[in-house]
Amino acid sequence: MPYKAPVRDYQFLLNDVLNIAQYSNLKGFQDASPDVVQAILEEGAKFTEEVVAPLNAPGDKEGCVLHPDHSVTAPKGYKEAYLQMVEAGWPALGGDPEYGGQGLPHVVATAYSEMLTGASSAFAMYPGLTDGAVAALSVGGTDELKALYLPKLIAGEWSGTMNLTEPHCGTDLGLLRSKAVPDSDGTYKISGQKIWISAGEHDFTGNICHLVLARIEGAPAGVKGISLFLVPKFIPDANGNPGERNSLHCAGLEHKMGIHGNSTCVMIYEDAKGWLLGNAHEGLKIMFYMMNNARLGVGLQGLAIGHASHVAAVEFAKDRLQGRALTGPKSPDKPADSILVHPDVRRMLLESRALLEGGRGFLTWVALQADLAKYAEDEATREKANDFLSLLTPVVKAYLTEKGLKVTQDSMQVHGGSGFTEHFPASQYMRDIRITLIYEGTNGVQALDLVGRKLPSKGGRAVMAYFAEIDAYVAEHEAGSAATFVKGLKDTKARLMDGTMWLMQNGMGNPDAAAAGSLDYLCLFGLTALAYSWAQQAAAAQAAIDAGSTDPFYTDKLKVGRVFLERILPEAEAHLQKMKAGSEALFALEDDSF
Amino acid sequence: MPYKAPVRDYQFLLNDVLNIAQYSNLKGFQDASPDVVQAILEEGAKFTEEVVAPLNAPGDKEGCVLHPDHSVTAPKGYKEAYLQMVEAGWPALGGDPEYGGQGLPHVVATAYSEMLTGASSAFAMYPGLTDGAVAALSVGGTDELKALYLPKLIAGEWSGTMNLTEPHCGTDLGLLRSKAVPDSDGTYKISGQKIWISAGEHDFTGNICHLVLARIEGAPAGVKGISLFLVPKFIPDANGNPGERNSLHCAGLEHKMGIHGNSTCVMIYEDAKGWLLGNAHEGLKIMFYMMNNARLGVGLQGLAIGHASHVAAVEFAKDRLQGRALTGPKSPDKPADSILVHPDVRRMLLESRALLEGGRGFLTWVALQADLAKYAEDEATREKANDFLSLLTPVVKAYLTEKGLKVTQDSMQVHGGSGFTEHFPASQYMRDIRITLIYEGTNGVQALDLVGRKLPSKGGRAVMAYFAEIDAYVAEHEAGSAATFVKGLKDTKARLMDGTMWLMQNGMGNPDAAAAGSLDYLCLFGLTALAYSWAQQAAAAQAAIDAGSTDPFYTDKLKVGRVFLERILPEAEAHLQKMKAGSEALFALEDDSF
Repeated sequence: MPYKAPVRDYQFLLNDVLNIAQYSNLKGFQDASPDVVQAILEEGAKFTEEVVAPLNAPGDKEGCVLHPDHSVTAPKGYKEAYLQMVEAGWPALGGDPEYGGQGLPHVVATAYSEMLTGASSAFAMYPGLTDGAVAALSVGGTDELKALYLPKLIAGEWSGTMNLTEPHCGTDLGLLRSKAVPDSDGTYKISGQKIWISAGEHDFTGNICHLVLARIEGAPAGVKGISLFLVPKFIPDANGNPGERNSLHCAGLEHKMGIHGNSTCVMIYEDAKGWLLGNAHEGLKIMFYMMNNARLGVGLQGLAIGHASHVAAVEFAKDRLQGRALTGPKSPDKPADSILVHPDVRRMLLESRALLEGGRGFLTWVALQADLAKYAEDEATREKANDFLSLLTPVVKAYLTEKGLKVTQDSMQVHGGSGFTEHFPASQYMRDIRITLIYEGTNGVQALDLVGRKLPSKGGRAVMAYFAEIDAYVAEHEAGSAATFVKGLKDTKARLMDGTMWLMQNGMGNPDAAAAGSLDYLCLFGLTALAYSWAQQAAAAQAAIDAGSTDPFYTDKLKVGRVFLERILPEAEAHLQKMKAGSEALFALEDDSF
Repeated sequence: MPYKAPVRDYQFLLNDVLNIAQYSNLKGFQDASPDVVQAILEEGAKFTEEVVAPLNAPGDKEGCVLHPDHSVTAPKGYKEAYLQMVEAGWPALGGDPEYGGQGLPHVVATAYSEMLTGASSAFAMYPGLTDGAVAALSVGGTDELKALYLPKLIAGEWSGTMNLTEPHCGTDLGLLRSKAVPDSDGTYKISGQKIWISAGEHDFTGNICHLVLARIEGAPAGVKGISLFLVPKFIPDANGNPGERNSLHCAGLEHKMGIHGNSTCVMIYEDAKGWLLGNAHEGLKIMFYMMNNARLGVGLQGLAIGHASHVAAVEFAKDRLQGRALTGPKSPDKPADSILVHPDVRRMLLESRALLEGGRGFLTWVALQADLAKYAEDEATREKANDFLSLLTPVVKAYLTEKGLKVTQDSMQVHGGSGFTEHFPASQYMRDIRITLIYEGTNGVQALDLVGRKLPSKGGRAVMAYFAEIDAYVAEHEAGSAATFVKGLKDTKARLMDGTMWLMQNGMGNPDAAAAGSLDYLCLFGLTALAYSWAQQAAAAQAAIDAGSTDPFYTDKLKVGRVFLERILPEAEAHLQKMKAGSEALFALEDDSF
């Protein structure tokens, strides 16, 4: 069941739908000419399909090993593939050119990221966590720290981690206990225990740069007393090379349901040397740069694993001969028809594809906003793009992982009994994807972020701009060649507007009422975002057909999109009704009666 | 996270809702006096909570071992618990008194089965498969075979298995190749390979009685040439004791995502001695007795694992302190509030409970139909009950497993990151429950059975009787004290009726159209069935309150039911719309384009 990267879909999204060539005057996009993008897609597919994907199943079975000296070995082949990846320059794709990065647009790097993650999500987390460390350092590091660390991190020579969670505190960081004591040389001595540290220890890179939340002695209690520190495994020497071993180590590996190939570490810091990033007590602000980056990455992970599981299900369905079509044999020369003749099997495969292709369109649209927020020439465009990025980050994270899980479930179901055995990849995909609904803030936390923070932010500016964006699109395309898609978008957006108004009227006075329906509201938001992308994709496909293209890709796109309209969008009304139920029934039951 | 059996809920369902005392004149029910039932519930809870549940997590980690001599060892403690269970007479609860069973109603035995399965589904499958063998033997065995085997099987001294699947054939049994050659003594020599044989080999019982589908030499091709054989591991000697070893063995154990404690075997038969059950070439007919029994058991498994996972989630939520209530601290003396203060956590727990309690009500109602089909005094009642049982079997199997999976997903989500580690039981429940959507016919196959076979059977007699049953209930209770529940039932049933009409109008001419929406139709059916049970439960709870009971169980029941009305029933319309989309979009895409 080899992995197949969605190259054609990215060509379509980058060129036909987003038309990134229109931004060629912007920094970042200048080097992203169509042939460069094409080469990245093709070479990225080749590398991830041929080098990374074969490591995925064995890595799941083998897992990571912690040795008595606290070193950790990843599954066989991981290190070699990692080094090959660094050698080829892949980690630096979207990195800042000032520090050796290739400076390509985030939307292009996103295509590669999906491929890497789909090929092996456990493997992709090793470079993935580094991206977060780069983001935090870029924002909070001194020029000296940036010059020392960023080139190595961007190249992938060194790697990064995020150290937030402690045994008694996950979502509620205000409870954290790790402490930092100022040292005479301006650094800090960091002590504490951190858990669930992905890629916390391994032997791929010359150094591992831990980003650690801790409380400076005497700091205020709660979240306003938390600072962020850079705590490298090896303290760089005068030449910037890994020098003295810092006093931190991996004390245990977590036994997890999935992502076995990634080392999920218990980390112990004992007066480890750390450098403060940003201001004291303001660590969460910087951590959120890292976190938002990570949340988009987790949404991508949901999409990527979903796609990989779908590829396996399609291949299985084509091969498996069982039963006959209800309308008479389709392969009378064979003992049975392939299970692709069964409507319910096609339903599962096509609903999956409608979610994946819509989700991919949504993800790339959001990734483009990240580029525009950074590179657009006028302030208003940057601000609007930034608003969209901020508003939609929780939707990307939660909706794409919820739907990614649905896709892996259906992909397993297509396999029948084979899917439950560990001989086929369906089980691993399902075990691997499950964490995406949890980490970097559970999907419930994302929903609360959307409803409690992102919607009311700046007087609702972002959500109003998003509605205006869709309204303008609908007005322009309502009578166009993709009218049924525009109508689906219009109706779904109307429900989202209805839900938003309900939140405004009911959530102000009773935050519990808003929170009670927040995940349903987020799903309604996700449906609208996918409907928007499907409208754009349908219009682009229809335009290509109208221009004379006979590539079946375009007619297939419209066919898959139709499944989205008919079989996914009907969920909108159910979400709206559920969210409007409010919180009364949820609080009627006494705690003791649970 | 100890397992807690739903004793109180069964007391309520058996006494207040179904009022089984009203059937005390019927065979089977005569011995099921309220105090006997109460003793069974309490002792069943004690045995399953104290003896079986502690084996569940260790059994998952240890799994089964196949030895070079083809013997299989189950996880530590399984055998002792099994023997203790047999000693206490639990397997014989619902068995035919003519063969040593206790002859209690199926609906009472169902309560115990849920407890056993919830305590450990992998363990419960060992006696569970025997029930199917008993069903097949009772229908297809000669008096001699029945006298020899049934007492030992019913007591649990011997166990049974179902051997259907071969590597190339699962759902499509017409393809099977195992063969049977008549021997001079009237028995058959059975040869072939069977896979995924649950409890196929172990050392708990003196004998293992395999029920094997095979093709008698010269039999017609396809499903009409399949016969069913009893093939014991040991051939009983003249005294009925296990004698000569039959030529069959376990050649391998399946590596599965879950239910590790159950031995899932590859079985090899090499001229093994077998006894024909029923007529030659009519094996499927008997197999379906076994299968229907097993399908109800799988639905129960979905409910039972869902309940167990929910119990663990509730306990975790009460213990875990994280964050503060949106409306201000609830436990100001503690570092944080328990996560039970968060609306989204309550939503997950209460939606789960609404599905579980509704599902349990539905399951017991169907179990009662099995009793009425067997024991009711007049032919018309027996026939109607049998119609309901047959109609609703696929709904029990598929809907309760779909919703059981949703419950385990939400139970894991309540755990946050802890849920993804193997230190908490959430992962095992999720891995264990996943097979229930697949085996004994995937849920897609159940949906096809409902739409293609059960609906049109006898001119739609069963479904029309079911609608009439609900209509009569609605007419009688519409103005009663549980009116909101009756309205929810009425509206949902109206949608189901609408969907049924659509199937009649569109499915006749185009079976693909009916099949395309079959799972959505089945879910709509399941929603209606749960709404019916919730209406009954609400009425019973309200009656108890009106009669002066101050037991908070009754008011809690109404509160949980309200969550069902507000947050589960809105799905009905979405299912209806999706099913009405038909099959056109699913067949628009060419096979090569998948």
